[in-house]
Order: sequence, then structure tokens, then C-alpha cells
Amino acid sequence: MNQVKPRTLSGFMELLPQQQMYFENMLSIIRETYEGHGFFPLDTPIIEASEVLLAKGGGETEKQIYRFEKGDTDLSLRFDLTVPLAKYVAMYQGQLTFPFRRYQIGKVYRGERAQRGRFREFYQADIDIIGSESLAIENDGEMVVLISQVFEKLGLENYTIHINNRKILTGFYEMLGLAEKSSDIMRIVDKLEKIGKESVLELLEKEGISKGQEILDFMDNSKKSMEEFWKALKAYEGKNTTFDLGVAELEQVCNYLYATLPENLLDTVDLDLSIARGLDYYTGTVYETTLNAHPEIGSICSGGRYDNLAEYYTIKKLPGVGISIGLTRLFYIMEEKGYLNPHFLSAPCDVLFLPMSQEKEYMERIRNATSHLKGKYQIYTENKKMKQKFAYADKLGIPYVVIVGEEEMSQDNIVLAKDMKTGQQKQIAVSEIENVIQNHPDSPLHEPERHQRDKRPFSMKKEGEAIDE
Amino acid sequence: MNQVKPRTLSGFMELLPQQQMYFENMLSIIRETYEGHGFFPLDTPIIEASEVLLAKGGGETEKQIYRFEKGDTDLSLRFDLTVPLAKYVAMYQGQLTFPFRRYQIGKVYRGERAQRGRFREFYQADIDIIGSESLAIENDGEMVVLISQVFEKLGLENYTIHINNRKILTGFYEMLGLAEKSSDIMRIVDKLEKIGKESVLELLEKEGISKGQEILDFMDNSKKSMEEFWKALKAYEGKNTTFDLGVAELEQVCNYLYATLPENLLDTVDLDLSIARGLDYYTGTVYETTLNAHPEIGSICSGGRYDNLAEYYTIKKLPGVGISIGLTRLFYIMEEKGYLNPHFLSAPCDVLFLPMSQEKEYMERIRNATSHLKGKYQIYTENKKMKQKFAYADKLGIPYVVIVGEEEMSQDNIVLAKDMKTGQQKQIAVSEIENVIQNHPDSPLHEPERHQRDKRPFSMKKEGEAIDE
Repeated sequence: MNQVKPRTLSGFMELLPQQQMYFENMLSIIRETYEGHGFFPLDTPIIEASEVLLAKGGGETEKQIYRFEKGDTDLSLRFDLTVPLAKYVAMYQGQLTFPFRRYQIGKVYRGERAQRGRFREFYQADIDIIGSESLAIENDGEMVVLISQVFEKLGLENYTIHINNRKILTGFYEMLGLAEKSSDIMRIVDKLEKIGKESVLELLEKEGISKGQEILDFMDNSKKSMEEFWKALKAYEGKNTTFDLGVAELEQVCNYLYATLPENLLDTVDLDLSIARGLDYYTGTVYETTLNAHPEIGSICSGGRYDNLAEYYTIKKLPGVGISIGLTRLFYIMEEKGYLNPHFLSAPCDVLFLPMSQEKEYMERIRNATSHLKGKYQIYTENKKMKQKFAYADKLGIPYVVIVGEEEMSQDNIVLAKDMKTGQQKQIAVSEIENVIQNHPDSPLHEPERHQRDKRPFSMKKEGEAIDE
Repeated sequence: MNQVKPRTLSGFMELLPQQQMYFENMLSIIRETYEGHGFFPLDTPIIEASEVLLAKGGGETEKQIYRFEKGDTDLSLRFDLTVPLAKYVAMYQGQLTFPFRRYQIGKVYRGERAQRGRFREFYQADIDIIGSESLAIENDGEMVVLISQVFEKLGLENYTIHINNRKILTGFYEMLGLAEKSSDIMRIVDKLEKIGKESVLELLEKEGISKGQEILDFMDNSKKSMEEFWKALKAYEGKNTTFDLGVAELEQVCNYLYATLPENLLDTVDLDLSIARGLDYYTGTVYETTLNAHPEIGSICSGGRYDNLAEYYTIKKLPGVGISIGLTRLFYIMEEKGYLNPHFLSAPCDVLFLPMSQEKEYMERIRNATSHLKGKYQIYTENKKMKQKFAYADKLGIPYVVIVGEEEMSQDNIVLAKDMKTGQQKQIAVSEIENVIQNHPDSPLHEPERHQRDKRPFSMKKEGEAIDE
């Protein structure tokens, strides 16, 4: 037979089973969090008519798009989940209830230059809330609450959600008489964290933008205490209405967070005037999320408020706010930096059943044992040596094996349970299997617990005495 | 602004939010069932090198493939999940533990002629168990158990899983001296259910195949009682080894099912000699699943046993068994035929919180109320009239609304809960919200239950008396 060497295209992530389980775990955490807060799932085609997908016109992105013809139709693969959302809301606006809250987790495609940690096919996980004509600013606060819930559940502890409001920047540059250069300045200042003050000043000068120092001094307010920060912003009040509106919105978002974010998470939030997001699309609140120990990675979750989601498809005004996590890249980074949560399970099941014979009575005993079992289980039926059967459980990290052999069959409802970690094994009733695999304190495989109370306390502190007394 | 009419390509399914929730529900049932039995999730790229994806050569399928160039690379979109699995197992065989059990749910692409109920982008949900060199026949039985679990949980009651073994057919046609015509015969007889005996006979004759009546008589054994069925098959024993092997395998699969399938599900299984599956790829057990009330739809879940998963990629022998559900089509059919399970939820959350003010104290009360809430909730913050706020909950079918107004704020930890269905509302403690939304019997919104015991029984039967005595 003519054989082809099997391979996967570069820039396309393909994981081994245990890694994939981890990734699926991340997916279900995100799904559950968003579904837990009234977001509808959404699924749109990966292929769209190019004319629809590229309605906005491409710029940088257009070169990266997977575009091709099938029959006479000019097709493109989606490069993000925002354009499909805009199309969807424009198409079905009469059938949607606003504010329309949706999450979407799906693959998107960008033919970027192959590079370590850059992917051509990758998952994005987006949430957006779309209003009809208007949308309360509190939604901008809710985004932050949701980001932090997701990251907490993923077990990522050391992160910061940076918040800014583009109206503050736009207003400030107007005050400096640099209104027309506004976009350029934002693009350059956005790099502040990465390239430092000197380089930002140089870049500004190169673009013929004066008052670079003044701009940087303004950014420095982000380093001040919250009290000083607000004092500095309020000092400009009354000079520019866009600026004032931005400050008011940012304050409202903060108030929402003070009232709704659990107190222990407040310090994951930071107000940062240098954040602008590249796209002019954003018109108010903007977000970026960074790992504190790895600023060089850049943002792992970004988004913001926009005035008009679907202006290329409909005259209806659809303001919204949304965030997006680049999941494939996030997984890659977490694995590389050792951030994968070791508490996520990697075994495909909790218990492996080993019938010593395929005869009806043996299998029926397993049916009885599993009929009300809540855990994950698998029945191993390969005709292999005992040693190989245990090696299978061992390699996959399956914690318990339940054997049905001749001896067990001589008694009613009995199986032999083995703890693969300790090697302990014991004949138990089928009804006890649940306790074993759920690792209940009354599991028949447990060693009797040592009575801690019998031992004198190691601590020198007497009972009821506070240490610093 | 230059606007483009938003549209979705024909042959691409795009659902409204409530429908999409239903579909996601189906996805999670399938995921949970397969994960509950030790199957690893797998995710492979949608785009592959054409050379790899089409290693087997195409035939009918090749014309339907989405194939294009990007840069200098010849790319194709996957048209099923089996070829990517073969590639994956061949590539990573050294790192996998066999039998390798995986499920994969993903979109595949076929540029079929647009037609009602036919999709160009559709979900397949596959499971396969791959052995290294060998794989026990019991796995073929496990597939049936898994199919029935999935369909039961989806709420599809009236279905039949048809089982056959291709070795029986191959052996039988060899006995008739029609070995070389074997594939043609199977292809034609496969249509028996759809086109009837007369047409099958005609088609066989047209292909120059004699003994058509004998073939149909053999198929008729599928209509006999189980006892008669096995007697008929055993009558041929000793004449052809392939036939005998097929009968032995089918018997083993049945024994597995008698021992492991819950008794109430045994009647969902049928042995059907006319089932062959089109592809020569299958070498033993084959499955088809039909809806009893709609035979015209054909199989909604099919698969079988194969000797060699990845012969185009590796010399290693990888026998396996698998089944595939065409999910997009199944959803389409279920919706069209009114089979969608009404017990699946369609509201995006269990409770909608309505703060009458965005002030800190109001929002903090909601934080307290939600901090340990297990249900799904959403906080509604739009600045709308009361009537519109309730209309939002109503349109989305959200069953409970919890209001935090001035009156509630005058007391500690109190909110106003409203049952949207009955209209009942009551001030309750925040700690009682869980009981309300979980609809517990002690929910403060419940009407006091009528004491059934006080009423004389309507039935004329005396207590303890059986009706037909």
C-alpha cells in the first residue's frame, strides 16, 4: 500500500489525550461560568461569504485570511468571533431579546507567519452584551467580574485586569490640541509597558507629536494611589466634555466593582491610563489582562465597549461591551510557564472493571455494580495477562481497579477492589464501590485513621490562648 | 456607510438562541456519556494538508471536499472525523495507551448539493476504540450500550439499533459462489428497507447477479424470532469459515448485550442481516440506528468494526470499532418531527435580579444574595421602566425575579421574590432564594399543599386490594 507520512500543519495545535482533557476542562469552566450568568451559547459557521465577512474591509487582517472559491462562491474562514456576531445580531435582530447576552467558544483562522506560540487555528472564547439603542454602563463592570471568575476557577492566581476608558484619552488629547493625532498617540502609548518611556518619547517625536512628556506624565497617574489618581483626573474636570464623560463612566464601573466583586478579588483590578487597545472600534471602557510574572506575554484577555456593533450590516444602533480570551494561546502559555492546575484530573475514569471471564454471570455482576454508580468507569475486556491489565490502569492513572474473579463469583454481590496508589486491596460489596471511588471517609479501602487527639499538640500555644498575647 | 446585507451561506445551520441552548444540551449529554466511560476527548485541526487527508484517495467524497491553496500549501477541510483519527493514532502511536478510547465532537465539511435537511457544515460526534494488533469483540458490544445510553438521555424513545456482521454476508455470498460480486450485492441489499424486495431483485438482475431470491430469503431470517434466527444461521455452520466466524462474533456481541444492557433496553436492539454499510472499510460488526416512526430518514447513528484504521499512514495494524452520530442532521430531524425534549431548559438563567438603584448598598445586597447561590442568575441593570424589566424576564422564560427596592433596603437581608408563572410574590430572606429557584418543597413561594389524606379516595378499590382480584 502507498503510504503517506502523517503530519499536522504547523501553526495548528494538536494535543495528546491527557493535555486535551486539561484543555476540555478549561472549556467547561468557561462555559459554566458564562452560562451561570445568563449568557446564551452561540454557534456560527466557520465559513462565511467573503463579501459578508470582509464588509468592514480588511487592512492588516485581510492578508491573513483563508479565502478561497468553491463553485462560484467566494468564501472565507472567520478570523474572529466579533464579525460573525455582528452579522448574526443584524440578521436576527427582530427575534432577539435585548440586551442580548451571548458567549461563543470556537475556532478562528489567521494565516500568520509561523512562529513559536502563534497559531493559525485557535480557539477564542468571547462574551458580549449587546443593547438595542442603549446599554447601561454597569455591563462594563460585569465583564470584569466575569473575567475574574473565569481566571480564579482556572487556578490562575497572579493576574491583573487593567481597565481604562478611551473617552478619557480622546478628551485629554483634545485638550492638548492633538485631537487629530489621537489614534496614533494611543497606538504608540499602548506599547509603554513593553518598550518603556524613552522609546515611546522617541516614537512620538518621530511621528511629529509634541508634548510627549506631558502625555507620559499623565500616564504616570496610573501609578498613584487610588485617592491621588482620582484627584489628578478631577483636576481636569470642566475642560472637555468627552474627558468628563470618560471619567464619570470609569467611576461608575469602579463603583459597580466595589459593590459586586468579592473583596479578595479587588486587588486583581487596576486602573491604567496607558491601555487603549489598537482598534478604533472601541469607544469607552477597555480591558486588558496580564499575568503579573510575565508582562512580556501581553494581554491574555481583552475587550471593551463599542458604540455600534453592526454598522456594516444594519442602520440599527447596537452598542455593546465584550471580552475575548485567546484560549489556545493561553493554554500554550500556561503549559510553558508551569501554570497548569495539578488538581484537574487527567485519568479518563475513576475505576476500571476487570472481569476475569466474559461469561454472562461475570458481566452481570459488573452491570449490577455499575447500574447506580455515579463516577466514571470503564470495563476492560481485552484478553491480556493480568500484569498487562494492571499496567493499562497504571499508565492512564486510573486510581481504582475492581476485579471480578472466580473467588468473588463464589459469593453474592462481592468484588475485589484495589487502590492503585497504595496497592491495598479488599473484597467489598458492590454497593461499596461508590464510597471507594469517591474516596469517602468510610471507604472500606481506607486505613483506620490515626487518633490525632491522643498525641500531645506540637504547638507550644496553650488551648484558647492567642499567639501574640 | 456602505452596508452589506448580512446572510448565512445555504447549507450552514445557524440557530436562534433558544434552539442553540437545546443543541448545546445535546452536546453536553453526549460528552458526559462518553467521558463517563473512559473515553478521552480529542480535537484535531479542521484544516489538514490535502496530501494527508486524501491519502486514501477520494472517489465520491473527493468532489465534495473544500480544497484550496494558501501560500504554496494545498489544504483541505476535514470531511469526517475518522481520517483525522487515523492520522492522529499513526502519528502518536508511541505515546498512546491501547486500547485507545477517544470521542470527538466537531464540525466537518462536505460541499453537497444544497437540499433541505442536508448540510455542508455539520457536527459529527464519534467514538472509537482502537486496539494495537488486536481488540476484543466485547468492545463491539459496548458501542451498542453507549448508543442506547445517549439516545435514552436525549429523550428519543422509539428507536432501533440494528446490528449485523459483514463476515456473515461475505461468507454467505462465498457459499453462493458470488464472492466477487460481494460488494455490489451488499450495496444493493442495503437499500432493502428503503426500496423494497421487488426493486432489489431488479437491481441485482441488472448487475447480472443470480440467486436474488435466495439472497432475499436469507435476509428474511431477520424477521424470525431470535430462536429461529439462530437456528437458521447455525444450519449453514461448517461450510464457510468466514461465515462461521461472523456468526460466532455476532453471538458474542449478543451475549455481551444480554449481560450488560439494562433489561428495559434490550428491545431497542435488533439483528438485521440486510445491514451492510456502504464502505468496504468495515470488516465485522456493523450498526445502524433508525427512528421506528420514520424509516425514511435512514440511519441516524452508524458505524462498525474495522481491521485496520490507519493503513495509509502506518504499517502497524490498528483494528478498531466506532460509531458516529450526525448531530446537525439529528437536531434538524428532531425539531422537524417534534421530538425535541420539552424538559430541557430554554431560559438562560433561573433568576433575574432587579436592583431598583445602582447605588452601592443595593448592589451589595445582591452580592450577598448571590455569593453562595448555586443556580444560574443574571443582574439586570438597564435603565428601563419596571414593565420593560419584567417583559425581559418574561420573553426569555426566566422563572423567578428578585427585586431589591427601597422597601427591601429598609430591612436587613430582605429581597422581594416573584414567581413569573403564578405571579405570586413575597419578601424573603436572601438565604431563601436558593430554595425558591430550586423549587424546593419548603420554598417560601409555595402555596401550602392540600392535605390529600383528608379527602376520601376517589378510587373504588379498597386499600390493599388488587384490582383484578
